[in-house]
Amino acid sequence: MRRKICFPITSRAYYGRSQLLIRKLHDHPAIELELMLGGSILLDKYSRHIAEDIAAGGFTISASLFNVIEGGNHVAMAKTACLTALEFTNGFHTTDPDIVVICGDRFEQLAIAMAAAYLNKTIAHIEGGDVSGSIDESVRHAITKLAHFHFVTNEDAERRVLAMGEDPQYVFNTGSLDVEVASELDAAITNETINRYGVGHEVDVTRPFLLVIQHPVTTERQNRRHVEETLKAVTALAMPTIWIWPNPDAGTGEVADLLRNFRENAGHRADTMRFITDLPVNEFIALLKGTTCLIGNSSAGIKECSYLGTPVVNIGVRQQGRLHADNVVHAADESVSILDAVRQQMAHGRYPSSAIYHKPAASQTIVDLLSTLDLYTQKRFFDNTAATLREPRGRPERGRGTTVRT
Amino acid sequence: MRRKICFPITSRAYYGRSQLLIRKLHDHPAIELELMLGGSILLDKYSRHIAEDIAAGGFTISASLFNVIEGGNHVAMAKTACLTALEFTNGFHTTDPDIVVICGDRFEQLAIAMAAAYLNKTIAHIEGGDVSGSIDESVRHAITKLAHFHFVTNEDAERRVLAMGEDPQYVFNTGSLDVEVASELDAAITNETINRYGVGHEVDVTRPFLLVIQHPVTTERQNRRHVEETLKAVTALAMPTIWIWPNPDAGTGEVADLLRNFRENAGHRADTMRFITDLPVNEFIALLKGTTCLIGNSSAGIKECSYLGTPVVNIGVRQQGRLHADNVVHAADESVSILDAVRQQMAHGRYPSSAIYHKPAASQTIVDLLSTLDLYTQKRFFDNTAATLREPRGRPERGRGTTVRT
Amino acid sequence: MRRKICFPITSRAYYGRSQLLIRKLHDHPAIELELMLGGSILLDKYSRHIAEDIAAGGFTISASLFNVIEGGNHVAMAKTACLTALEFTNGFHTTDPDIVVICGDRFEQLAIAMAAAYLNKTIAHIEGGDVSGSIDESVRHAITKLAHFHFVTNEDAERRVLAMGEDPQYVFNTGSLDVEVASELDAAITNETINRYGVGHEVDVTRPFLLVIQHPVTTERQNRRHVEETLKAVTALAMPTIWIWPNPDAGTGEVADLLRNFRENAGHRADTMRFITDLPVNEFIALLKGTTCLIGNSSAGIKECSYLGTPVVNIGVRQQGRLHADNVVHAADESVSILDAVRQQMAHGRYPSSAIYHKPAASQTIVDLLSTLDLYTQKRFFDNTAATLREPRGRPERGRGTTVRT
Amino acid sequence: MRRKICFPITSRAYYGRSQLLIRKLHDHPAIELELMLGGSILLDKYSRHIAEDIAAGGFTISASLFNVIEGGNHVAMAKTACLTALEFTNGFHTTDPDIVVICGDRFEQLAIAMAAAYLNKTIAHIEGGDVSGSIDESVRHAITKLAHFHFVTNEDAERRVLAMGEDPQYVFNTGSLDVEVASELDAAITNETINRYGVGHEVDVTRPFLLVIQHPVTTERQNRRHVEETLKAVTALAMPTIWIWPNPDAGTGEVADLLRNFRENAGHRADTMRFITDLPVNEFIALLKGTTCLIGNSSAGIKECSYLGTPVVNIGVRQQGRLHADNVVHAADESVSILDAVRQQMAHGRYPSSAIYHKPAASQTIVDLLSTLDLYTQKRFFDNTAATLREPRGRPERGRGTTVRT
Repeated sequence: MRRKICFPITSRAYYGRSQLLIRKLHDHPAIELELMLGGSILLDKYSRHIAEDIAAGGFTISASLFNVIEGGNHVAMAKTACLTALEFTNGFHTTDPDIVVICGDRFEQLAIAMAAAYLNKTIAHIEGGDVSGSIDESVRHAITKLAHFHFVTNEDAERRVLAMGEDPQYVFNTGSLDVEVASELDAAITNETINRYGVGHEVDVTRPFLLVIQHPVTTERQNRRHVEETLKAVTALAMPTIWIWPNPDAGTGEVADLLRNFRENAGHRADTMRFITDLPVNEFIALLKGTTCLIGNSSAGIKECSYLGTPVVNIGVRQQGRLHADNVVHAADESVSILDAVRQQMAHGRYPSSAIYHKPAASQTIVDLLSTLDLYTQKRFFDNTAATLREPRGRPERGRGTTVRT
Repeated sequence: MRRKICFPITSRAYYGRSQLLIRKLHDHPAIELELMLGGSILLDKYSRHIAEDIAAGGFTISASLFNVIEGGNHVAMAKTACLTALEFTNGFHTTDPDIVVICGDRFEQLAIAMAAAYLNKTIAHIEGGDVSGSIDESVRHAITKLAHFHFVTNEDAERRVLAMGEDPQYVFNTGSLDVEVASELDAAITNETINRYGVGHEVDVTRPFLLVIQHPVTTERQNRRHVEETLKAVTALAMPTIWIWPNPDAGTGEVADLLRNFRENAGHRADTMRFITDLPVNEFIALLKGTTCLIGNSSAGIKECSYLGTPVVNIGVRQQGRLHADNVVHAADESVSILDAVRQQMAHGRYPSSAIYHKPAASQTIVDLLSTLDLYTQKRFFDNTAATLREPRGRPERGRGTTVRT
Repeated sequence: MRRKICFPITSRAYYGRSQLLIRKLHDHPAIELELMLGGSILLDKYSRHIAEDIAAGGFTISASLFNVIEGGNHVAMAKTACLTALEFTNGFHTTDPDIVVICGDRFEQLAIAMAAAYLNKTIAHIEGGDVSGSIDESVRHAITKLAHFHFVTNEDAERRVLAMGEDPQYVFNTGSLDVEVASELDAAITNETINRYGVGHEVDVTRPFLLVIQHPVTTERQNRRHVEETLKAVTALAMPTIWIWPNPDAGTGEVADLLRNFRENAGHRADTMRFITDLPVNEFIALLKGTTCLIGNSSAGIKECSYLGTPVVNIGVRQQGRLHADNVVHAADESVSILDAVRQQMAHGRYPSSAIYHKPAASQTIVDLLSTLDLYTQKRFFDNTAATLREPRGRPERGRGTTVRT
Repeated sequence: MRRKICFPITSRAYYGRSQLLIRKLHDHPAIELELMLGGSILLDKYSRHIAEDIAAGGFTISASLFNVIEGGNHVAMAKTACLTALEFTNGFHTTDPDIVVICGDRFEQLAIAMAAAYLNKTIAHIEGGDVSGSIDESVRHAITKLAHFHFVTNEDAERRVLAMGEDPQYVFNTGSLDVEVASELDAAITNETINRYGVGHEVDVTRPFLLVIQHPVTTERQNRRHVEETLKAVTALAMPTIWIWPNPDAGTGEVADLLRNFRENAGHRADTMRFITDLPVNEFIALLKGTTCLIGNSSAGIKECSYLGTPVVNIGVRQQGRLHADNVVHAADESVSILDAVRQQMAHGRYPSSAIYHKPAASQTIVDLLSTLDLYTQKRFFDNTAATLREPRGRPERGRGTTVRT
């Protein structure tokens, strides 16, 4: 009897970073993988082609659920989460998986984790224990407290997950799936390829170009102004720029509105810019590798770029407190601060690769654990404080867990 | 400008334990209190009269939302949580409160907390940090990770909330509201009063009687068998017994079905039993005070009864690991084990009062804090491990917080 | 390529009356039948065993959706309809049927028909064109205006469906499925069988007994009083009585509450009564055949009993205006009126069989039409008034449609 | 005690056409008006400023509910309808109106009407009885069968509503609100004003210009191709053109995608075009008056333009069968057919005003009726066929109703 694993995918980002894992789960003889699609992954304007890619990949898709509520504000975000979870409940009930895999810290994933927990499913969480700004900070830790298996990406995260009362025998530092994907993909980017995506002016990616990814911070009210500051800095640099459209979160509405207005009315100031809503992961990684500097607040600047050595200007509080390598320069949400930081990074150039988020074979480690770990549902707060007192770092018994694949 | 506080009430239990707090919030000149009703509180069979009491109390009720999905199983529980949160989102959006108060660890409260967090509300959580069995264990800690202010009821809980990364300046051991209610209410119980509630045979509460409260454990599959074991033990004792109907959780359906069948078909074995679905808090406390022994897995056995000195036989895993006083004897889900424990408690008689969950003026402490604490929304993981290393118990800076009212 | 037909079943009544049709659809070589279950059919207290029967029948069940919102009032009814339709939309999207079959006039069926119409499905409606009281009257005709194929049960209904602008080539008087079931089932009822169901006192069905089925009328506020009047009349008759629990509609809550109270407190007045919530269709038909008089407002009194010749006292407005045979005596919602009518029926005894709702092979007629009719989605108002002016009754061109099977 | 009237507004179109009525209801001393906002009216990209206008108008807004599900396809449309109705149910329950006013034939209005009917509200329907293509045809008539008062806009519609079994004493031909608005507004349009809206090239509205409004037809699969044909015809004409963005219906997604692509990639072919998503009603009427020819399938071409005498090329089946004046030339969904028709209309020029949809004071007539008609909830099928036989046209007793205001 194969172990049935359900993998809810609700955004393009999760598919990109999870594709090695999904493929290995699909191919594993002792695992029956079912994908459930919902959220923005099904929407043309974000990532419709990904849904089609997934379908073409031979995966079993047990549900495709349209449940994004329009509005781009906090109400829409909260109700989208609730509706998503309500509908995924039906899916979980029908397919009755042994394990539900929850990735990262997007708002709808907490709702899905909640539903899965209420249905007594064993929950595996990938990328817990990090710290950041935005609502993601709360979402990530709340998921940890619902999850049974924890696949974290770095030592700091491991320490925090343990402090929160998780059982060491189920906490594993596997390294980051995003970084693994970045380390394995080797697609070259061409002008022809990249300019097929998005709208705006053509960008010559064989020459220096900037890459901007700035998501709204759901816990703030200044999202519009913050993006204006970034726009001001970027236009002042007058370099070819690829601007990736933000994720559908609370605040996306006003940011999207601002960008649309800019495109329509900025005249020649927009002449160097291309706006892209949705990009296959290969092209995305290629852009991360090729850009002179990544600007904004994407976790890709912290994770993938630490390994790739790409200079990053991280703006504002969204990634606040997250473990990062030398490639990151922080800037405030002010155009002057951003300009300074970008110029500093342009002067510096690329960085050596860092392994803080990287372990070889992260996806294989996770697959092996998912196929063999004993399942359980009743959680119990595990008091790791005493252990911490005695041996603050390397707990050997857990250490075994983390090194299954190395 | 008064601070607007929204208090979602979704079950009879929360209203009972929160009534001193609600009254004081309502009367506070700097606070505008709005109640939102949902879940089982609006349903006749559980607690409809409470909804009417609340309405009669002069409170502002900003929404009354029917959102319990029938089924009494896990699917219904998960979908009820999602629908409740979806609808409460509309309410939060309309009333725009400064603070949302989340009580305890019921499944729908996590969903409501999630919605409130996504709307950037400041969340105050009452009764975090405890440990127990059932899904409540996961729910409680996940709420902690979404909440901004923490009002815990005991030292163990305080320690855990801090370990989980909460900021000490927002964690307060206020004592238990349930115990405060139990300590302040002084209603006498009469046969006339009690036999007006429920169905079954009259019980003489001036003489020794048993009280049974056994909720389903949502993370288990043996709920029916477990209640059968309890029924077997209780009927063997052949004493007058008041059996309180379980909460509407996953598993309630089969437990209710079992009890209904017993009533219809047990013949004389049911002759000493009365079944009550819903009871005002005064009468409930009076029963806790008057019973020879409380049997089951209610938190009232752990909390209220620690203060009241009532002998308790706690069955199974639902309260597993929770801090308790000497008044509790644990039993397995086996009739023999239960019988032994009850006989042991009957032989022992009442216990001295314990203060492990009791601080004077718990509700006033919470009101004072809710009216004065600085509001914030962006959470940050607070690493209390180092502090723990240096001074494992009494952190003075936090100590100040906990003693505001004493 | 087989034609895919989706058959939503949301209440015990629909399964009972549709079972011959469902079996024939399932067995048809050119049809792929998928059942979708929702509403009260999945709930223990109403008809859980039916869901199990269906599963045991070898049918494909494409979804089992818990979506009944508790409350037993109008809000719960409206929200149940909406939630049901929302969830069935996902099911229709996934299974992509060619035809959705909508039965009768229950509130959730209109919502399901609406969803199916919005998904451009061809909708077949069974039992349109009748008139009655309660919200059913509006629901039934609104479904007609969404439906593409109409299988009506009598000439009056056919005339009304045409008047409402439906295309005569898609309107068929097939006779009633309920009556076909009643005419084909031949189960004997025994005391042993019937007393296995429900609660209350044993009833001897080999001797004269009354059968009561009184549903709430959703458009009225007097449902409690009306059932009290019926209770008063029935207890005055002091005959063995089987009382069938009402459907889950708005108003069920208060009726159920009244009946529960009666059972608990009526003392010897309840000594002759048995209350049954849920009964297989064989036993139900047997009761209809065996009872001295059916009392209440069930459509079974109008339809099945017209064929069976069973005396019926029809109370109040719920069946108002519906075509009926001589076996029905109407009574107001007053105990005196009901008593008079029952005594009149007892004096009269059984009636000759009427064929007003009966055509042989109703289910086969419908199956043949469903497998062969051309599918279409865009409806157009068909002006039958001119035709009516010229030839008020038998329109020959439509006549062909109605006689496919005779 | 004032009569409480609830007016759900879910799209810009309804607000535009209803604004005289809403104002008069608001000002009426015996009426308490509450607006409920939902659907696309709250979304920036369609009509956010309308929501702000409404708020600024001093109206009571009892709920603002975000409930549009993204996708622009049939699933999203069906689920949006269900979610809208679910949430409006809460609003109806809270505000408890005497009358709910349902306008027109949009898909979410049927869902809202259903919810209102289940809550036993008296429903007034405006614009029933018309025929058209698209799902609107089914929606409109289904609403008629749920509604209690009918305010139709023309004699044909009146005749159909009666044929469908509505009681003549509640059916009133009041004329069209849209036409009344068109007849009373007298705003001049200036280039400055109109070019503030939308994106694309400036249009000189003091010279001949085309106006295009082409909504998807939800019951068709060729929406993209149909709009391509229109685009082909319009670009061939090479005239200044204002293109109004389609309503959010199933099919909008692909149409919007096509238009966006055209804008980005059409080069000089788009040089004469301006795209507008959202326009105040004054400006909209001014465009209808000023355009050389309205092209597409908007009901404004049939109704407002009949009175204004504007040449209209009506494309495809969306308005099929609807009563129209001489100003309309029909075209197939083929560019050649469209081109021919537009050239024919350009050669003809403006038409004399027609009164087929016009009665003076339509809104006042409706207000008077809403404030005085006896309320009822239980509908009964009214057999008008016999009456029709005797006196095909003017039924005197209903005639009185229709002439209240004349």
